[in-house]
Amino acid sequence: MASTRDRIIVATNEVFRRYGYNGTSLSQISKASGATIGSIYHFFPGGKESLAVAVVDATGEVYRELFEAIAADAESPAGAYVDFFSGAAAVLEESDFVDPCPIGTIAREVANSSEPLRQAADRAFQSWIDAARTHLTAAGVRPDVAGELATVFVSTVEGMFVLTRTRRDTAPLHAAGRQLAALVEQAIEDTADVRASAGSK
Amino acid sequence: MASTRDRIIVATNEVFRRYGYNGTSLSQISKASGATIGSIYHFFPGGKESLAVAVVDATGEVYRELFEAIAADAESPAGAYVDFFSGAAAVLEESDFVDPCPIGTIAREVANSSEPLRQAADRAFQSWIDAARTHLTAAGVRPDVAGELATVFVSTVEGMFVLTRTRRDTAPLHAAGRQLAALVEQAIEDTADVRASAGSK
Repeated sequence: MASTRDRIIVATNEVFRRYGYNGTSLSQISKASGATIGSIYHFFPGGKESLAVAVVDATGEVYRELFEAIAADAESPAGAYVDFFSGAAAVLEESDFVDPCPIGTIAREVANSSEPLRQAADRAFQSWIDAARTHLTAAGVRPDVAGELATVFVSTVEGMFVLTRTRRDTAPLHAAGRQLAALVEQAIEDTADVRASAGSK
Repeated sequence: MASTRDRIIVATNEVFRRYGYNGTSLSQISKASGATIGSIYHFFPGGKESLAVAVVDATGEVYRELFEAIAADAESPAGAYVDFFSGAAAVLEESDFVDPCPIGTIAREVANSSEPLRQAADRAFQSWIDAARTHLTAAGVRPDVAGELATVFVSTVEGMFVLTRTRRDTAPLHAAGRQLAALVEQAIEDTADVRASAGSK
């Protein structure tokens, strides 16, 4: 059975996905988690901000593991990106366009007002970029290009969560999967060309 | 001299860029604009929500015009995307990483809670996608590919505003400009190849 602390984190994640950080009150979190306000302060003495840091850290890890699982199952390195965006489209449709991930919203809300939350969001984004860079490098992409592509991938995911929820249409996610896959294929090819021409010298 | 209504819209835009929609109160808007709460309700009888719709509409138009101006001045169609992201990087650095655009944050905060604001954000994003699609089609990209690329461009802009502000580093914006330009060049080339091979039949 989940601990009370875990239950509070999971429930808070759900509320943040719908209303963002500033739009969520501790009493909403108390109601959603079934924990009293006193209990929330017991586990998170810093209140909503320190609870949000825990939510961002936990969600960051879940999404990194999800990316790694999808990448491991994909038919090809480029296919991993098609699959990731298709999976995101399915999640959005099933949830009637609730934000799949509260981190982007929180990051934008607090980038200029909460340093601990800004740092937590940065850790999460960086861990995703690192996971994608590792994946791309293993697929044969030059490390510097892999870093750029991984960053563009993560920013496209975050941007697409905005566009797709706003439009209530998942077509853009599939388009993003195709375009990212095209960039990845091109990068793999370019790196192979450079190696072949270096080898032939 | 700007009208009181315009002054309220401009001041609200500034406050939203820092604190988002839910994090902003009417009294903050009153203070920032120098207009009384009564005056705000006079121009926006629906209060914060209808004021926010006006802000999103006005900001959407400003950014569409900015994109069109940058595209018109660029050395090449692909170069327009490099220039746009460089411009965004400069704005972020000058403002110490305040959100250049409040629309993405508002869209994520309210996608499930305010239908008028969701629709306003959708209008803004759609107008940017239309502007980029028009630009890409004029540059010789096949219309269906132009639509996908334009959507990926707008989502990358929105996603990059999250990553860059969170990391307090504009390097990812320059990477995005390079990657988008590569996609645009490839799309122009592909369309030219298809036309050439159709012409040679």
